[in-house]
Amino acid sequence: LSTTFTAVTSDAVRRLNLSRLLRQVHVHGNLTRSELVADTGLNRSTVAGLIREFEDVGLVEEVAGRAGGVGRPSLGVAPIPSAAVVAAFDVRVDHVVAAVMGLGGVILARTETEIPDSQSGPDDLVRALVQTCEQMFHEVPEGAAWVGTGVSLPGVIDPESGWVRVAPNLGWRDVDLAALLADALAEHFSGSPAVALANDANAGVLAEVNRGAGRSLSDLIFLLADVGIGAGIMVGGRLMTGTSGFAGEVGHLIVNPNGRSCRCGNRGCWETEIGRDAVLRTGTGNRVSVEQVMDAARAGDENAILGLKEMIGWLGIGLVNLINSFNPQAIILGGHLSALMEALDADIRDTLPTLWSASSNQLQLVTPTLGQDASLIGAAELAFEDLLSNPLVEFERSPHLVSA
Amino acid sequence: LSTTFTAVTSDAVRRLNLSRLLRQVHVHGNLTRSELVADTGLNRSTVAGLIREFEDVGLVEEVAGRAGGVGRPSLGVAPIPSAAVVAAFDVRVDHVVAAVMGLGGVILARTETEIPDSQSGPDDLVRALVQTCEQMFHEVPEGAAWVGTGVSLPGVIDPESGWVRVAPNLGWRDVDLAALLADALAEHFSGSPAVALANDANAGVLAEVNRGAGRSLSDLIFLLADVGIGAGIMVGGRLMTGTSGFAGEVGHLIVNPNGRSCRCGNRGCWETEIGRDAVLRTGTGNRVSVEQVMDAARAGDENAILGLKEMIGWLGIGLVNLINSFNPQAIILGGHLSALMEALDADIRDTLPTLWSASSNQLQLVTPTLGQDASLIGAAELAFEDLLSNPLVEFERSPHLVSA
Repeated sequence: LSTTFTAVTSDAVRRLNLSRLLRQVHVHGNLTRSELVADTGLNRSTVAGLIREFEDVGLVEEVAGRAGGVGRPSLGVAPIPSAAVVAAFDVRVDHVVAAVMGLGGVILARTETEIPDSQSGPDDLVRALVQTCEQMFHEVPEGAAWVGTGVSLPGVIDPESGWVRVAPNLGWRDVDLAALLADALAEHFSGSPAVALANDANAGVLAEVNRGAGRSLSDLIFLLADVGIGAGIMVGGRLMTGTSGFAGEVGHLIVNPNGRSCRCGNRGCWETEIGRDAVLRTGTGNRVSVEQVMDAARAGDENAILGLKEMIGWLGIGLVNLINSFNPQAIILGGHLSALMEALDADIRDTLPTLWSASSNQLQLVTPTLGQDASLIGAAELAFEDLLSNPLVEFERSPHLVSA
Repeated sequence: LSTTFTAVTSDAVRRLNLSRLLRQVHVHGNLTRSELVADTGLNRSTVAGLIREFEDVGLVEEVAGRAGGVGRPSLGVAPIPSAAVVAAFDVRVDHVVAAVMGLGGVILARTETEIPDSQSGPDDLVRALVQTCEQMFHEVPEGAAWVGTGVSLPGVIDPESGWVRVAPNLGWRDVDLAALLADALAEHFSGSPAVALANDANAGVLAEVNRGAGRSLSDLIFLLADVGIGAGIMVGGRLMTGTSGFAGEVGHLIVNPNGRSCRCGNRGCWETEIGRDAVLRTGTGNRVSVEQVMDAARAGDENAILGLKEMIGWLGIGLVNLINSFNPQAIILGGHLSALMEALDADIRDTLPTLWSASSNQLQLVTPTLGQDASLIGAAELAFEDLLSNPLVEFERSPHLVSA
């Protein structure tokens, strides 16, 4: 039996090992050396060497480990949040939620900004984001490395070009937002890092898989209900974008062929039946927020209750259609969908049409653990991707924040 | 810069290279050495060595290549169909189509068998399949290596256990058909190879991707309309099975909430609106085959035309829902769906509801190239998988057919 050799440079192996280890520490936080050995599949001395490298540059520190059964607790390795940070933005129809997230997922600064006129265009938005960034950085410890910027928005991102193809609720078409924002940031902050962009539901599913209700799942659907309805869909552990970024555009599933007219030209689209406007139309019709309608239902307003119950019917038809198409492990009901179930004190499972799938008992229908912040956190996770793929090189090349 | 080495045994590399080359020859047929070099990414001398090994055992032969421009045509490498064969079965509700396929995709024998009573159970079916196998092998050249058996059927296959979870139109639940058939075959044929099982729509999409309308596509949906409606779905080049094999059970998408009662307990499921029974109910209602209804429409029968037009409406709603969920490159309309469009002389694109996706212009809505044989050919392709993964070892260990 002869043996051939394939040359692999130590740089590539080292980069991969650093990446594996830092990703574990970033996602799971304080881990013992034994846990890191088990999670990365690397041997003990390799893990020790990698930890030393990260300690040397100040990305991780050794801390008292969690007490595990008898004996003294072993030392743990924890991320240092202020060592490396990202700026993250969740652009919604009428406001922006922004945050600075540190390594390990700690939110170091957070702010919400109104966008007075959502139709004002990408340039105004970009100006607002740069300003917000500047404000937030005042709250971040000096010396932090700024390793990335992430933006989540309610629009379709072309997987090849990275352009926003269409964002109907923002009134946008074919906008290279990543380049616009990167350029504007570079004008204000010398050496500012790259900008990553994601559809809001796709950002949401990434966050829930990393830090929320989807942990350890490979096949799940994150539904985000706001003005529109979008889905972030993971198939076999991979985010599904479709041929041109339009996968998961489930707001335009036709659930009620005789239903209300949708702006897309069809009738009874899922978002015309269960989106925000449908909630606001429910009951007396003079309520201006989803929360007011939910409150009315909780208080026993019969019109509100009847209206929301009808919506649950359309919710169920869409869910059954997704379940029969994807057979996922879980569906996470984001945006106002969980509030809807809670307001009616209803169990979504009882209100679903009959499920064909014999495995429906195993299907998890759950609330997002991260609440309204799922897309924001997903944007931050995307922004960390460069650092996590090539830790020491990216850390070195990133600008460090100094007080203005 | 230091360099580390990862040891890879030559056996593993050789197996991988043999696999790559035979797969190309099996799928694409006669290829020149230059094409094989380009397609496999291997160098010329490696390709020459691999070809020699396959020639030595009689799996491929050198033939006159296709004339390409000026100069003498280069020699081509072609599969020898009678060198390695598989038995393939497409189990339908009331009959079985069976074939022996040779390397390269050549059908060497083909037969259709009625199943008198489709509810008679797996044991009767297995007996019929073994008999059919025996008959077909008389038509296969002596000495052929029998390298696998594949079965396609209208049911849900559990991806972990390989059992048929449920096949409603056969009246089955929790049947280990692969083991039953493998045991029965082994009793008749000493050393008979393994049995691979697939849902009929999943088999169909594999066949169309290898040899049909889906060539070179990575994201597509193969719709199979018969008594029920199923979908074989590829996402990012991988077949999607879902958590427990129920992905693509699109027959139970609810397209018409006020529609006909379905045996699943809901109303207006896609298969109650466009499945075979819906076609047979169309028009005067005393027709016994889909073809008769289509003929009536072609001959101008107004009831038939009206009925089929209504069906196209429900077809369109289901298609839009799949397109907005998956954003595929192509949807292949299998079973009676293409006949339906043809009978009405209609272009499915004109009858679709408005497509939300801006990329819908690029979406291909096509007829299966393999016609009614897609699932049969897909079952055969699955049966070739063992040989194609580890060619020489599997070829060696397979039994060779001798005349009875």
